[in-house]
Amino acid sequence: MRLSKLYTKTRRDAPKDETAKNAQLLIKAGYIHKDAAGVYLWLPLGRIVLNKIIQIIRDEMDALGYQEVMMSSLQRKELWETTDRWDDDKVDIWFKTKYKNGKEAGLAWSHEEQMVDMMRQFISSYKDLPVGVYQFQNKLRNEIRAKSGIMRTREFIMKDLYSFCRDQEQHDSFYNDVKEAYLRIFERVGLGDSTYFTFASGGPFAEFSHEFQTVTEAGEDIIYVDKSKRIAINQEVLRDDVLNNLGVKREDLEEVKASEVGNIFSFGTSKSEPFGLKFTDEDGKEKFVTMGSYGIGPARVMGVIVEHFADERGLVWPKGIAPADVHIVRIGDTPEVVAAADKLYADLQAAGKQVIYDDRNERAGQMFADADLIGVPHRVTVSAKTIEQGSVEYKARTGSDSKLVKTDEAVKTLTKA
Amino acid sequence: MRLSKLYTKTRRDAPKDETAKNAQLLIKAGYIHKDAAGVYLWLPLGRIVLNKIIQIIRDEMDALGYQEVMMSSLQRKELWETTDRWDDDKVDIWFKTKYKNGKEAGLAWSHEEQMVDMMRQFISSYKDLPVGVYQFQNKLRNEIRAKSGIMRTREFIMKDLYSFCRDQEQHDSFYNDVKEAYLRIFERVGLGDSTYFTFASGGPFAEFSHEFQTVTEAGEDIIYVDKSKRIAINQEVLRDDVLNNLGVKREDLEEVKASEVGNIFSFGTSKSEPFGLKFTDEDGKEKFVTMGSYGIGPARVMGVIVEHFADERGLVWPKGIAPADVHIVRIGDTPEVVAAADKLYADLQAAGKQVIYDDRNERAGQMFADADLIGVPHRVTVSAKTIEQGSVEYKARTGSDSKLVKTDEAVKTLTKA
Repeated sequence: MRLSKLYTKTRRDAPKDETAKNAQLLIKAGYIHKDAAGVYLWLPLGRIVLNKIIQIIRDEMDALGYQEVMMSSLQRKELWETTDRWDDDKVDIWFKTKYKNGKEAGLAWSHEEQMVDMMRQFISSYKDLPVGVYQFQNKLRNEIRAKSGIMRTREFIMKDLYSFCRDQEQHDSFYNDVKEAYLRIFERVGLGDSTYFTFASGGPFAEFSHEFQTVTEAGEDIIYVDKSKRIAINQEVLRDDVLNNLGVKREDLEEVKASEVGNIFSFGTSKSEPFGLKFTDEDGKEKFVTMGSYGIGPARVMGVIVEHFADERGLVWPKGIAPADVHIVRIGDTPEVVAAADKLYADLQAAGKQVIYDDRNERAGQMFADADLIGVPHRVTVSAKTIEQGSVEYKARTGSDSKLVKTDEAVKTLTKA
Repeated sequence: MRLSKLYTKTRRDAPKDETAKNAQLLIKAGYIHKDAAGVYLWLPLGRIVLNKIIQIIRDEMDALGYQEVMMSSLQRKELWETTDRWDDDKVDIWFKTKYKNGKEAGLAWSHEEQMVDMMRQFISSYKDLPVGVYQFQNKLRNEIRAKSGIMRTREFIMKDLYSFCRDQEQHDSFYNDVKEAYLRIFERVGLGDSTYFTFASGGPFAEFSHEFQTVTEAGEDIIYVDKSKRIAINQEVLRDDVLNNLGVKREDLEEVKASEVGNIFSFGTSKSEPFGLKFTDEDGKEKFVTMGSYGIGPARVMGVIVEHFADERGLVWPKGIAPADVHIVRIGDTPEVVAAADKLYADLQAAGKQVIYDDRNERAGQMFADADLIGVPHRVTVSAKTIEQGSVEYKARTGSDSKLVKTDEAVKTLTKA
């Protein structure tokens, strides 16, 4: 990607009404555009990163044989009345609208009800179970305040997976598979070391629900972490009986700030009963399906990554989700410099690398500042001075020093990076 | 994909209230689920086909250097008041909703206004032009009636591209590039032969707008086609002056039924003026940006393909967008048959083919009927009888006869198919 062709530009300041660090940086670096409070548009660089996170999640879902669908924003009132979640008194984040004939419709903030209703057509026997169905779908949530940048918005894409099992045992095994997949996902997006499987209150249907919490100074939650056991407990369930149950000692727990990056719930039959979602078991008896739901918000994950890794110079992306592998800065526009930088760009691409190429011929200081702001892991500079020495100047985004490296060697090393 | 694992099932009948042939077939074959009038959910097979169409479109957009973004469903009232398109009297397909503070918001049926507003941040000089920005985005349209299946729904994904140019000349060249890309897209999805570049009324800002119309018996439009010139004219502009202008003779025109599959518009400066979207030209003067917009609805295209190719036995997919390349039917479940079919499945996948494998051990008649209904181009049957002869039975979806083919040869031929 040549920066001279990219239509977005970096900017010195974020809008004054933007208070979240993640959104400020992403706006300045040209990843997102703020349209309204809690409504952001995804610019080319932002869409690439968001999409890489989405692809990692999809990959892990597909590997377990879960099947991808796409549901709708428009929601039928009847479906949500079935579970008594239509009233604004019961659910306070609805956006609602009306058809031309005056009939009300909701705009999906979740898809559980529609999913259960749809599955009635396809589940009839124990042979149909277990099954996992997921989607990446727009959610609209009428939040009173939206102030955490892309971490809590009024409109966002959510990966929601639903599981349908014949009994608790089958459900527990499914649930555990998803838990392991989630840990792999957080590993792959660069949050593995700092993300903990966290016990939270289960609500009416289960002793616990589980969150995935990333320990980070920017976190808005407080959790209690047992680092050696890699378990965390949130404030709601920090009780002696729970600690005993989990075999965790209070003195091993560390209080830390954290951000929720995923959650998984067991529903039992609380969703299948109101909709009559049943199956015939091997014994010939009709039973209700045991369900679970498993969410990850890719934009929220991206926001946490920004907050967690960014430094005073700008964004810092883990390599699995960076918008490119290498950022080439070309200083000067003499034929020799242009030819050398063009060749490096072509060679790295030919080796399968994604490359941002700053061919704008701006001041060196401006281009270095932009490279830091954009946050690609590896920066390579080509100038008359480096060419004289048959070299390029290499700097890691997280390093403080740059060094001269022979050009061939640099290509070889970056190709393996 | 093993059919025993696919959670959807074929069904004998579509819902009684479904009158469109495309939706009837897609529901029966398990591609879509009808949630409400004009609201369909995309099941795994449907999502695969829709996604292949989307990828072909994306491919052609990226090849021309257009840049992908993702905008929002929530729309600010102010933006649409700027162009006097907020009132329901002016635009009769709005869905509207309200924020918690009582402020109104629209749900996007188009994104022109938001796009122009966003581009004000990034366009300032003639050097920034031309630029093409596109997205695949959910559109919500409050249609009074929805009766054409997935061809006209209340909620659907649309590819919308917008062009920003410095003058009419630059715009004309951009417009022509998109026209050529659209023709390649329709070629690649299997509609090349029957799709015509069609002259339609231009509205207030241009002499013509252009549609891409697919000639098909199921079409809801009437157009007039000059087959040798590969040009069509719609009823609105079938006038002598237009025919003269285009060098087309009335006697060469054939009246045919057709379905619109894409459209492209020139806006001139009618969109940039109300928003003040200007740039500084080489001569130092401020000028308004010349714009165009270019739409394709992937689901609409898919609906037209269904209507155009389906036969009395079910769906018939062109090879570029079929949910799989090959559909294996396994008759029987003796170890020999299972081993032979499993091996064929593995070999074809290893050769890079996408395969639907009917391993359900249903009655042969049921499995053949399902294969026809699902509509994959190539069907291969493995049974005790075919194994005896070292062969498989091959049938093309569009052919009437099946034939025995040596297994090795079948794999070789299908790998190249």
